[in-house]
Amino acid sequence: MDAEKFSGGYCPVARGLARVGDAWSMLILRDASYGLARFDQFRVSLGIAPNILTRRLKALTDDGLLEKRRYSERPPRDEYVLTAAGRDFLPILYAIGAWGARHHGGGPLTRATDAETGRVIDPVVIDRNSGAPIGSRPLRLTVPGREDELLVE
Amino acid sequence: MDAEKFSGGYCPVARGLARVGDAWSMLILRDASYGLARFDQFRVSLGIAPNILTRRLKALTDDGLLEKRRYSERPPRDEYVLTAAGRDFLPILYAIGAWGARHHGGGPLTRATDAETGRVIDPVVIDRNSGAPIGSRPLRLTVPGREDELLVE
Repeated sequence: MDAEKFSGGYCPVARGLARVGDAWSMLILRDASYGLARFDQFRVSLGIAPNILTRRLKALTDDGLLEKRRYSERPPRDEYVLTAAGRDFLPILYAIGAWGARHHGGGPLTRATDAETGRVIDPVVIDRNSGAPIGSRPLRLTVPGREDELLVE
Repeated sequence: MDAEKFSGGYCPVARGLARVGDAWSMLILRDASYGLARFDQFRVSLGIAPNILTRRLKALTDDGLLEKRRYSERPPRDEYVLTAAGRDFLPILYAIGAWGARHHGGGPLTRATDAETGRVIDPVVIDRNSGAPIGSRPLRLTVPGREDELLVE
């Protein structure tokens, strides 16, 4: 994807995807939310090639989702921790996980439960204003500079 | 990403990402939700190289997010429409759009409003069981075959 073209366009979906729109980046964020922070931890967890991991960590850091922290001076070593913007992306991963479990859920799966109630979580994207799940009510899209609106049902 | 490795693993996030974990695929789904269906419509809308578009459309069709429908017999031409599983992914795109608008929202943006109330939507991922936004309460993760649980706060 041409990240430069999409990163400043009108569509907020494309703007989001310009930063985190690939599977490796999202799996790195997932692992970071589990407490993984060091290069080798990500590498072993994901089975990712080191050069790709280096690129993805740099991109996530440049885009403000991860923050580099030096944990050793000699030799110089950094670890990567989630920023507020990175943490703010995590609920989306749970929504993707719910979709994955619904449509490709055969066999054993990692389960997430509410730590207090012990109940399996059921992630759903709602409109905070109406309280309704997104997709359950028609939406109207307005593109800057265009008169016509798009009705999405 | 090694889609084959992740597509049947324990993690439902990885299973989801194995199918739709790249920006082009997600932008194709976005465009399909706007009513685009034909190869050239996607190509023009996204400015995507034809060979990449061909691959993405085939993958999304093979994975059951799009369905091919023949709209012309001579010459033979297919269009691509969202399946139920594809439509079920769309709310995640709105959550990504909300993240994009929050963290990279400078300048004009496409806006989505509730068609009935006229109010801008505010997509948020909640746990349908507790009603709380995901991320606002600690979660416990259980991995098949592992005794220890992971507390995510």
